[in-house]
Amino acid sequence: MNPFERVSIIGVGLLGGSLAKVLRKLGLAKSIVGYGRNKANLNEAKNLNIIDDVAPDIQSAARDADLIVFCSPVQTIAQLAMEMSPHLKPGCLVTDVGSTKETLILDMEKFIPDGISFIGAHPIAGGEMSGFRLSSDTLFDDAHCIITPTDKSDPESLKIAIELWKTIGMHVSIMDAKEHDFIFGAVSHLPHVLIFALMNTLGDLKSENYDRITSFSGAGLRDITRTAASEPAMWRDICLSNKDSILHFLDLFQETLNHLRSSIEQENGTLLTRQFEISNQHRLKLIGKI
Amino acid sequence: MNPFERVSIIGVGLLGGSLAKVLRKLGLAKSIVGYGRNKANLNEAKNLNIIDDVAPDIQSAARDADLIVFCSPVQTIAQLAMEMSPHLKPGCLVTDVGSTKETLILDMEKFIPDGISFIGAHPIAGGEMSGFRLSSDTLFDDAHCIITPTDKSDPESLKIAIELWKTIGMHVSIMDAKEHDFIFGAVSHLPHVLIFALMNTLGDLKSENYDRITSFSGAGLRDITRTAASEPAMWRDICLSNKDSILHFLDLFQETLNHLRSSIEQENGTLLTRQFEISNQHRLKLIGKI
Repeated sequence: MNPFERVSIIGVGLLGGSLAKVLRKLGLAKSIVGYGRNKANLNEAKNLNIIDDVAPDIQSAARDADLIVFCSPVQTIAQLAMEMSPHLKPGCLVTDVGSTKETLILDMEKFIPDGISFIGAHPIAGGEMSGFRLSSDTLFDDAHCIITPTDKSDPESLKIAIELWKTIGMHVSIMDAKEHDFIFGAVSHLPHVLIFALMNTLGDLKSENYDRITSFSGAGLRDITRTAASEPAMWRDICLSNKDSILHFLDLFQETLNHLRSSIEQENGTLLTRQFEISNQHRLKLIGKI
Repeated sequence: MNPFERVSIIGVGLLGGSLAKVLRKLGLAKSIVGYGRNKANLNEAKNLNIIDDVAPDIQSAARDADLIVFCSPVQTIAQLAMEMSPHLKPGCLVTDVGSTKETLILDMEKFIPDGISFIGAHPIAGGEMSGFRLSSDTLFDDAHCIITPTDKSDPESLKIAIELWKTIGMHVSIMDAKEHDFIFGAVSHLPHVLIFALMNTLGDLKSENYDRITSFSGAGLRDITRTAASEPAMWRDICLSNKDSILHFLDLFQETLNHLRSSIEQENGTLLTRQFEISNQHRLKLIGKI
């Protein structure tokens, strides 16, 4: 694809930093400007020549950019976009990497002026670690990216957005924002919430003779709780912006858990075996073995 | 340590098979007899010369053995021990690898005749996979083994049991059976039950346009649900034999989850951030980073 003249990345952490690195590597940006609250991230990116400049304010980040990518926690984006909107260059493409899409898009379509396109995107990359220091120009390689256009999306801008994520190595799917949030409420947000709750249940537990009983856990618990390391601000915003789906799936989980709890309470071995066999099957499907 | 004349392994799956292999490798058994319900496992172990003989019945498995190790699901052990008890050789040491200890030990001390010692053990090894085919003579290397003697345990037999697990490469801790079940109810059984419930909540979920929405999950969900592959019969027995601790910790988890759910429902960003920050800290402790 043709390189962008001036790319502005808002939030130069793991995802923003990785995006800057891969745009640099592929020569897709003539200049890259970074903006964000974390000055250490920005200075490190500038010193390593991953970004050309640190924008001193949101107006400078907006001005003259022909691509703006929001990589900050999802609840911060609409406010920043509103502050940017008087300074945006006509024809500028605005996109993001947020994990929730529906409320963001509703807000963005309010704040972004005519002649400027916002095309929501969710690259499924990054895991539980965060920060510029872990960013990499291969983070997006072969991963999936969901793009969530609306009826109002400009077809030409949508084409460029798809090309952008494909060019940096991703498999792109197009999806309705509401369906996106429903799906990720189930396969990502619910599990994260449960693991946060599990980690907080176990973290401080003591027994008669041991002050920290989690020291007896095996590799199982360490694998299970990996996502408990995820960034608080990011997950606060995901919970706030996808509240309805998350509450819905928490209720579904609660039903399944209550059912399993009753089987244990009633010592119903047959039912327990059946429930665990079903889990085995679902797990095999998940990892593509059946 | 001195080799055993005749070792009998009841249940030649992942743990039993690995034990036979390491006893063989270290020359700790002059002969090894296998017994169990899974004839394919037994035949494979015999063909590979990991065991010398397949015992045709429980009496033959008991007869002349000076070490018997139960590696079958924990609820099967007491019944088998009862059937074995008239055929046990005086001085025989009986042990096991079960994940729950309190009710098992109560039963075993009823069924095992005078002059024969049962010393409960829980080697923390194996993970979610099962079956002889995955067994290995390095499975126990550097892992922890909890041994749960009682007031009735013969000191000489306890010494031999400790030496056995140490000799095959494990770090041995001594613990009261009740405390063992409390600790593992928290750090192992609760997480397994939750992950089974999560897997069963997500497994069949569909969205408007997708029949299997788990296909959109990232590495996070695959890591989190690894234990959903665990063996149903083993986990049925763990749930049945550690019911009180598991129900207790399910209630604790429920409180923490309800608290988190309220924060989401009330859109309390401050409280969500705080809860996630606490998770981050617990996770760092769990992996030994703080």
